[in-house]
Amino acid sequence: MKRLKIFSTIVVLLFSSFQLSAQNIEVYPANWWIGMKEPKLQLMLHGDNIASDNYSLNYPGVRLVKVNKVENKNYVFLDLLISPSSKPGKVSIKRSKGEPILFDLQARRHGKGTAFAQGVRSQDLVYLIMPDRFANGDYSNDRAPGMRDQSLNRDSMYHRHGGDIKGVIQHLDYLKDLGVTTVWMTPVMENDMPNRTEHGYAITNYYKIDTRHGGNEAYKLLSDELHKRGMKLIQDAVYNHCGLQNFFIRDMPMKDWVHQWPTYTGTNYKDQPLMDPHASKSDETRMSDGWFTPQMPDLNQGNPYVANYLIQNAIWSVEEFGVDGWRIDTYIYNDLDFMNRCNKALTDEYPKMTMFGETWVHGVLNQAYFTQNNLTNVRFKSNLLSVTDFQTNMYGINPALTQNFGWTEGVNKLYQTLANDFVYKDPMMNVVFLDNHDMSRFLSQVGEDVDKLKVGIGWLLTTRGIPELYYGTEILLKGISNPDGLVRGDFTGGWKEDPSNKFTAEGRTDKENDVFNWTRTIANFRKKSSAIKTGKLMQYVPEDWVYTYFRYDDKQTVMVVMNTANEEKAIDPKRFSERINGFTKARNIINTKQEDLNEKWKLPAKSIWIMELVK
Amino acid sequence: MKRLKIFSTIVVLLFSSFQLSAQNIEVYPANWWIGMKEPKLQLMLHGDNIASDNYSLNYPGVRLVKVNKVENKNYVFLDLLISPSSKPGKVSIKRSKGEPILFDLQARRHGKGTAFAQGVRSQDLVYLIMPDRFANGDYSNDRAPGMRDQSLNRDSMYHRHGGDIKGVIQHLDYLKDLGVTTVWMTPVMENDMPNRTEHGYAITNYYKIDTRHGGNEAYKLLSDELHKRGMKLIQDAVYNHCGLQNFFIRDMPMKDWVHQWPTYTGTNYKDQPLMDPHASKSDETRMSDGWFTPQMPDLNQGNPYVANYLIQNAIWSVEEFGVDGWRIDTYIYNDLDFMNRCNKALTDEYPKMTMFGETWVHGVLNQAYFTQNNLTNVRFKSNLLSVTDFQTNMYGINPALTQNFGWTEGVNKLYQTLANDFVYKDPMMNVVFLDNHDMSRFLSQVGEDVDKLKVGIGWLLTTRGIPELYYGTEILLKGISNPDGLVRGDFTGGWKEDPSNKFTAEGRTDKENDVFNWTRTIANFRKKSSAIKTGKLMQYVPEDWVYTYFRYDDKQTVMVVMNTANEEKAIDPKRFSERINGFTKARNIINTKQEDLNEKWKLPAKSIWIMELVK
Repeated sequence: MKRLKIFSTIVVLLFSSFQLSAQNIEVYPANWWIGMKEPKLQLMLHGDNIASDNYSLNYPGVRLVKVNKVENKNYVFLDLLISPSSKPGKVSIKRSKGEPILFDLQARRHGKGTAFAQGVRSQDLVYLIMPDRFANGDYSNDRAPGMRDQSLNRDSMYHRHGGDIKGVIQHLDYLKDLGVTTVWMTPVMENDMPNRTEHGYAITNYYKIDTRHGGNEAYKLLSDELHKRGMKLIQDAVYNHCGLQNFFIRDMPMKDWVHQWPTYTGTNYKDQPLMDPHASKSDETRMSDGWFTPQMPDLNQGNPYVANYLIQNAIWSVEEFGVDGWRIDTYIYNDLDFMNRCNKALTDEYPKMTMFGETWVHGVLNQAYFTQNNLTNVRFKSNLLSVTDFQTNMYGINPALTQNFGWTEGVNKLYQTLANDFVYKDPMMNVVFLDNHDMSRFLSQVGEDVDKLKVGIGWLLTTRGIPELYYGTEILLKGISNPDGLVRGDFTGGWKEDPSNKFTAEGRTDKENDVFNWTRTIANFRKKSSAIKTGKLMQYVPEDWVYTYFRYDDKQTVMVVMNTANEEKAIDPKRFSERINGFTKARNIINTKQEDLNEKWKLPAKSIWIMELVK
Repeated sequence: MKRLKIFSTIVVLLFSSFQLSAQNIEVYPANWWIGMKEPKLQLMLHGDNIASDNYSLNYPGVRLVKVNKVENKNYVFLDLLISPSSKPGKVSIKRSKGEPILFDLQARRHGKGTAFAQGVRSQDLVYLIMPDRFANGDYSNDRAPGMRDQSLNRDSMYHRHGGDIKGVIQHLDYLKDLGVTTVWMTPVMENDMPNRTEHGYAITNYYKIDTRHGGNEAYKLLSDELHKRGMKLIQDAVYNHCGLQNFFIRDMPMKDWVHQWPTYTGTNYKDQPLMDPHASKSDETRMSDGWFTPQMPDLNQGNPYVANYLIQNAIWSVEEFGVDGWRIDTYIYNDLDFMNRCNKALTDEYPKMTMFGETWVHGVLNQAYFTQNNLTNVRFKSNLLSVTDFQTNMYGINPALTQNFGWTEGVNKLYQTLANDFVYKDPMMNVVFLDNHDMSRFLSQVGEDVDKLKVGIGWLLTTRGIPELYYGTEILLKGISNPDGLVRGDFTGGWKEDPSNKFTAEGRTDKENDVFNWTRTIANFRKKSSAIKTGKLMQYVPEDWVYTYFRYDDKQTVMVVMNTANEEKAIDPKRFSERINGFTKARNIINTKQEDLNEKWKLPAKSIWIMELVK
């Protein structure tokens, strides 16, 4: 397929319709720091016909290496070199015509903020929030004048509901009490799109937190408030595509800023052409370069200006906002070489930083292809530290609680999937989850059976990996993914007009308190459990609907027994002598009841026992 | 678990019930060759109280290095060293009491027989035969006096039917005409068990071809007759277990000759404990050391005498019978270190030799673990050249023709499974198949739909790998695997009393001739097709029930289009420009009809087009 011919709706916009006043020159990024490990910086200037200017600067320690002019005269890219010996201040970039541009050179963040870029690891419990749906902390920003989406209607899943970052900040104590250590919000960058802006994945300005979420200041405040509490912040990064209304799509720097096709061509959504030794180039190109949706152009990360822009934005976000962990949307659709470069740029700058990619694929082997793995002679080697573990979900905890026990069915699927961990370099870095903003909520996956939900939560918080809890799971939010909006319901109590406040015990029903307390008890046990946080996993072949595994280290052994049957089952702990040797009793961490390791146990239907072994 | 305590039914047999006359000393192997790459040989002598003797020999070039006496006085193991300079003859092993033992030292096979140990590769088409069920070439050996199984009843799937090696020899021309290059029979070694001896996997003497199959001479003749026709012989090797009536089980050389358990303990049949980084040792031990069935003791390959015995038997079989390829039963249940040693011994001695293991597991990753693969940092690295590709079967051609087309269902499963080929070192070595003696026959898998059977055969003979055709598939044999006997029906015409002879066109119905001719045409095209035999595979993402792939090399391009729908489907060949560039037409190899590569094609429901591209 020829990709040079431009997609028609964009060609119209390219060099004609965008008007900027001569004085209104945008600079991306508008600030940077002294003493970054990477001394190079490429500024994007955007303004009316600015390519007709000449540029120069004279600032101690800052050198203008090159002025890059491109197809579109409204853009100039300046290559700077920033010496570690330079001093904070306003760098004046002189133009042959017009006012100079002031660029803010700052001291690095450390010293001014609390610890950041700490990385997120198996010690953590991540809580995934859609900020429009969690809590409305500021009613004044629910609609933003001048923005395209003026919807505000909590009765529709596809309109804005008014939640914001302030709402998240107001409930950090709730989250901390629950046992959460880390907040991951769906993207909060500006999404100035005409509709469906609730999810945040159609970014129109990478350097601007959406006004309706509270803007850059609210995001900084959230970061500080999290760090004050010893908690962490994950940013949800979108590199593969942006919103069609992004300024750099409406007025593109050059034709190949995005991948273009003769007629609209969506991705085939297939990961196989990326790894298949038998793949055709055309299937691979369509996978990587096809558009995610007609509203989300596919950024051409092979274009060095695009690559620089995105990588610098990642570094900038971490430094500017004090981000600790990085989640990368639609990971497999990106240019994988670019992703390796981007990941390395982040870890070069922030050695403790971790990042995990969304890998909604089918099969451990397919998923492992996109992260650090134990494969050789493959077409591509990923340096990604971590992935969203869709496999232990779709081929794990879901069938464990929805299928009958069979040779390869039911809880055997969960066992089998974890047994394939040998293909990952470090499966402890996999982000495990019951559900997310794109999937049916777990309570709905298991037929609204609260017992099964509790088993799922028990597993989530005790298996290997980094657990992610989707907001509201602990108060029994439910919903089916198709249409997907229904899994993005509001957290009741996040709006002052709500009939009850489920952030409090009084606002929750007995059933909700039962699940909340269940989650809170296990999550807080986990916080102090070295065995669960960083210990090894030993799992046994499931027998007769029952799956038994251990988390253990030198200091602690935790035994977990999951009965997936609709009836009571018995087990004989003696089978697990390798792990129970030296112990006599097992203390249930929920009700503190002790069981004898020398006797058979009777497990209630649809239950999970989390037992700390005692001598 | 303690494994030293002996299984009670065996302990009785161990040192008491076995009686041999003093003159009747068995020697394993009874003959060997001069000039083998491995000069060491360990003879097992078996006779009444022979350990009370002293042993010596005086033969030029043959040295008795060590006399090993073991727990059971009825056994002695002699370590010999055979110099390449020694000469053929009878080596007399002297005993302090009684007659000497004569051991036959021979010149190597080359020179006396046709080429052997050629290996089996993707150029070949393997035909899998159950010799008891294919053709009865010698009615005089149907029952063998003195053997335990005296059943002979073609009405029962579980009794003997009388087929034999002579019956196979009589139909080699039929097989050659069909396009077959290689014969694999289920084991023909002695199975002197009381019942269920039709399958051959309960071997009671590794050095003896079952009398009912015609004995060692018939097997040698088959090998010669195959080689005369340019065809090859695969031996089905059973290392993991033997028949309970094997002489060395009835009278065990030592207690740990087999894996013993306090009470009968079967294997858990789970491959995961072998590879799972989280596995328990007890699950792994049970997998490898548990018994396959109560009738089949698990040989302890960790015992060096057992290991030597089995490895030498493999070498002996190849040299004695002129075997070309090696199939290893229940591969994953063996001691994998032993298997590596055994495989290496074979390829050290016969560099072109190939071997493939039975890997009835679930998942490409699991299967790849047992063969040469692209994995690092795993618990075990296999040197096995090839595996039975259960994955392209269970998660490939079966769902392709039995499931509706879906995101991960139907023919997408086949596509996905092949896309995972990157984990194998050489997927072209995988043995692909539609069915075998343990599975429902393919015609039954696809609901007795002959169109689907033809699609399956078309795929089998054109996809990557070494195709294996189960006997009688070409004449529409059918049957469901459970109970498994029903998939082991007789080839009608293999018995003189049969109502018709389906080895001939006259004996086949029109429908049978249609499938026979279909198979024969493709198999014979394959024989001459470099693209299919050794070319690359390129496969495209399936669209709307249709799966398209190419086999190609510098000399030839073959395009295969499979419509799995129950209705006609259209495709536009332009999508495949990477492979059709330079060609204008495609010639259907079945009906020689030409299609234009510049026009859309209409594919009939449930069909496969195998097209050779022409300029």
